[in-house]
Amino acid sequence: MLNCGLKDLRLVSPRDGWPSERAEAMASGALALMNPVQVYGSTREAIADLNRVYATTARPRNMVQDVFTPRAAVEDFSKKIAEGQRVGILFGAERSGLVNDDVALAQAVITVPLNPEFSSLNLAQAVLLVAYEWAQTRFSAPEEKRDFGGTFPAKMSDINALQDRMEIELEKGHFFRSPEMRPTIMRNIRNMFTRAGMTDQEVRTFHGIISALTGQKNPPDNK
Amino acid sequence: MLNCGLKDLRLVSPRDGWPSERAEAMASGALALMNPVQVYGSTREAIADLNRVYATTARPRNMVQDVFTPRAAVEDFSKKIAEGQRVGILFGAERSGLVNDDVALAQAVITVPLNPEFSSLNLAQAVLLVAYEWAQTRFSAPEEKRDFGGTFPAKMSDINALQDRMEIELEKGHFFRSPEMRPTIMRNIRNMFTRAGMTDQEVRTFHGIISALTGQKNPPDNK
Repeated sequence: MLNCGLKDLRLVSPRDGWPSERAEAMASGALALMNPVQVYGSTREAIADLNRVYATTARPRNMVQDVFTPRAAVEDFSKKIAEGQRVGILFGAERSGLVNDDVALAQAVITVPLNPEFSSLNLAQAVLLVAYEWAQTRFSAPEEKRDFGGTFPAKMSDINALQDRMEIELEKGHFFRSPEMRPTIMRNIRNMFTRAGMTDQEVRTFHGIISALTGQKNPPDNK
Repeated sequence: MLNCGLKDLRLVSPRDGWPSERAEAMASGALALMNPVQVYGSTREAIADLNRVYATTARPRNMVQDVFTPRAAVEDFSKKIAEGQRVGILFGAERSGLVNDDVALAQAVITVPLNPEFSSLNLAQAVLLVAYEWAQTRFSAPEEKRDFGGTFPAKMSDINALQDRMEIELEKGHFFRSPEMRPTIMRNIRNMFTRAGMTDQEVRTFHGIISALTGQKNPPDNK
């Protein structure tokens, strides 16, 4: 829950009571950073102050209820929260899941679409998947960001200078067997270097590689 | 993994060896439905036949790599798979995560955007979140589907007949204190019934309720 920014945990008749030393140990310090856990004697009491409740179930319960995926549920309850509604999500006990009377207390159902050949999910996993979808709407995503690790993409002029030097050294090394193929071969090499998206550091490293392979002590184009 | 339709697990130098009785017990029968688990001596060997590898890390590693969320990674590697590429995802050991040498073997990095104040995720959770995003692109989602539990939304004519009967009974019961307010009150009642999206069964049930409350044995509009 806390991994995903959720801090309000309510327990209904916890089998092993509360507080629980084992639960605390499993929580890796999360409980201290969450709001105090609330314990209730019945689901009805636990949801009394909420405006909208979603029940998580793996199987249909023969009741008339909207069925959401976790992703669609988050979209739905985010609107309710924006309206000032208090929203809760019901999860059942580890083995049995929610009883039908608890599901009937909810306005809507959440079902995770998983492999129909193996869909049983344990409680912790079910909580994580719903909470994760919530977190995806809250925490900034590094979508397709590139991590440059302290360096930066090289300027095209530096990349071109490297390629030009490479061509000169390849020429010296009799790399181009047929003059007609030279432009195509060089274009392919240039494409590979460009595609790699080299950094400043990598351009310098590559100059060093050329120097080393050609037996040069001081590369002509590189300090 | 199998919950999300993934069947190929490769292990690198598993601490407790393989096969493992404890792992088998935890898997709830999934192993029998997956492809045989492959064990390797090094990460390099484990990924030898793959074309593209993603490394999961919680923190930046000072390397030049594209960083994807699980969702963006799935979009990215689905394209690669469609091209016929073989794709793998690296996960590190429970406490330490992947070593930098393993991360360097990957073309890209996957990081789950979570609560920055509490982002440590255990191995099973990390695997689940990446596998779940993959499953979301494969298994049909019941997006906003309504489960009618064997019945069906009532026809508007049946709902209107119920409302008409209700108005008559309310009139008889002197419900409408002021004639001017009657249209507004009835509109609100109709709105509530319409919004509820009643089923055939519920319309019949409601006729029964009206009959019971008004002491009628055989409701006039309902068999």
